[in-house]
Amino acid sequence: MTLFTLDALAHPIVQAPMGGGPSTPALAAAVSGVGGLGFLAAGYKAREAVRADLAELRSRLPDGVPFGVNVFAPPGHGTDAEHVAAYAETLSREASDSGVGLGPPGWDDDRYAQKLDLLCQEHVPVASFTFGCPSREDVERLHRAGVAVWVTVTTPEEAGAASAAGADALVVQGVEAGGHRGGFDDGAPGDVGLLALLQLVRASVGDALPLVATGGVVTGRAVAAVLAASAAAAQLGTAFMRCPEAATARAHRDALAGGEAPTALTRAFTGRTARGIVNRFLREHSADAPSAYPEVHHLTAPIRTAARQRGDADGFHLWAGQAYQLAEAMPAAELVDQLAHEARAALAAATQRLHRPA
Amino acid sequence: MTLFTLDALAHPIVQAPMGGGPSTPALAAAVSGVGGLGFLAAGYKAREAVRADLAELRSRLPDGVPFGVNVFAPPGHGTDAEHVAAYAETLSREASDSGVGLGPPGWDDDRYAQKLDLLCQEHVPVASFTFGCPSREDVERLHRAGVAVWVTVTTPEEAGAASAAGADALVVQGVEAGGHRGGFDDGAPGDVGLLALLQLVRASVGDALPLVATGGVVTGRAVAAVLAASAAAAQLGTAFMRCPEAATARAHRDALAGGEAPTALTRAFTGRTARGIVNRFLREHSADAPSAYPEVHHLTAPIRTAARQRGDADGFHLWAGQAYQLAEAMPAAELVDQLAHEARAALAAATQRLHRPA
Repeated sequence: MTLFTLDALAHPIVQAPMGGGPSTPALAAAVSGVGGLGFLAAGYKAREAVRADLAELRSRLPDGVPFGVNVFAPPGHGTDAEHVAAYAETLSREASDSGVGLGPPGWDDDRYAQKLDLLCQEHVPVASFTFGCPSREDVERLHRAGVAVWVTVTTPEEAGAASAAGADALVVQGVEAGGHRGGFDDGAPGDVGLLALLQLVRASVGDALPLVATGGVVTGRAVAAVLAASAAAAQLGTAFMRCPEAATARAHRDALAGGEAPTALTRAFTGRTARGIVNRFLREHSADAPSAYPEVHHLTAPIRTAARQRGDADGFHLWAGQAYQLAEAMPAAELVDQLAHEARAALAAATQRLHRPA
Repeated sequence: MTLFTLDALAHPIVQAPMGGGPSTPALAAAVSGVGGLGFLAAGYKAREAVRADLAELRSRLPDGVPFGVNVFAPPGHGTDAEHVAAYAETLSREASDSGVGLGPPGWDDDRYAQKLDLLCQEHVPVASFTFGCPSREDVERLHRAGVAVWVTVTTPEEAGAASAAGADALVVQGVEAGGHRGGFDDGAPGDVGLLALLQLVRASVGDALPLVATGGVVTGRAVAAVLAASAAAAQLGTAFMRCPEAATARAHRDALAGGEAPTALTRAFTGRTARGIVNRFLREHSADAPSAYPEVHHLTAPIRTAARQRGDADGFHLWAGQAYQLAEAMPAAELVDQLAHEARAALAAATQRLHRPA
């Protein structure tokens, strides 16, 4: 079975999977439909919900048009329950103010094995992994089912491990990226800027392995920049969050459009390092939050759901990359076309500059 | 008098000023001589020493070949002497182990007014500013003397202020950069990755103002990337530190070539946030160091000088950007040629990718 490769795309533009809401089959279909690569986010979802998303996406696309599905690799078991309990203590006022209880801070692996089975059964074109690297055996099994395997990395060391496991491409995530740091170890969540990281990873894995660059890429100029830095494609998340096809919460959309507050890295919402727009919850709880994913994710879920429902942008995670202010509200297909057009113009201008006689 | 503009360069490659050692007239001459833009670092130096550097640089270049000089804008007076004294206490063992005393933690403005006078008298082609923005009056005075003014910025807000003051170009410094954060306020030293920052600054100041991109740019691919992201030139520091023309200390050179340790931001050495390779001094003192520049710079100077002299890479500041492992030991003129060649190839490959029919 032939695996998907990035040069099959008309536009080297990937829509990042955005778990917990924004990613929808409609968004992925719009991006894949116009020659980019759309993604579903399987994280936090039950297998049957992912299966339903897949059915809907396929119903919206002609046969053979590629897309991807992202899954969370199982987190480690390293968390001290006392630290989680202490953090829960600091959140009790937050919960009572919202009229909800805290969630049960259990550990789970987000049904990893079930989701691997599903990806194989469904022969999805691309499976991307966050929070860890699939085993060499799992990669081979996916390959036998016709599934190309991408692994998210935030350091040259992770890139080496993913390459050794047989990954077909690496999603190279710079520190600018919104949402969770996608690397393997929340104790060392990777703090390297995208352009520096692309150079380091390329030097580390050699010229053959395709890199997908992500983190703060919002404009066509930045798409052009990462291609020049040897990426095979750019992956954009925040840039798609204001599209009508995304299921981004209204208060989150408004915060992106407002564009005043900076972003910061925090474990306050989920127990795993992630970048969001600075709001009250982030300011008040970041210092206390332990590295404990998914326990803290479950602990805070009722508070965050309540805040989202009442439209309180100070009470839930406003995931956003460092250039979020430049995200535009427009249909996803138009956005992909605009990005590709801007990227071509940016490369033409840069080429002219480099070849100008002095 | 006509001011220097970046399109006068054969290669859009700027050698970053590296104060405290590495920058030399020989390095600047090598870069400017081959069609890039070399820089002298006036920071920490007496006026007569800068004048001597200028004379040597000019003696090495044909008339009319452009170069730049960097100066430190005066730091604020915000520091509590008690915090400096408390930090000095934690360093006393460090000093006695080195057989030196601590330096006197005084405040000074690095002879800012004298240096502005000198730049005007000498009609230097470009003056760049770090740690703050010159006043509108100073910018006009420099312009009357034929000096183009560049200002280092780390946020869109600083970019707006520098543009309003009349800057001719902005040095846009991403969080990847080695050495000091060059922005205006050490209390908020700018944490945005270069590619995200270029997009934000470009959107903030409009398309007319030239941007010089710096931070983690070490390869020709990264030079191409920042040009695609609308920079008029790339500025590289760490990339030049292993050149024979640089006066980089031997132990620092060896640390750059070793390439194992990560970098981190710290105030431990100078009281102002800067990025260096993680070593013992950085690990042991970062948590205690106050924001107090130049007091802490003077306080630790004897310890750092002693460590450098005995070749102890664990005892002084090993400034380096996040992609320092890719810096090569080669003559600066060859490096500029190689970077330009690689950048052209990178843009050609990226252009081919974007125009490929699917």
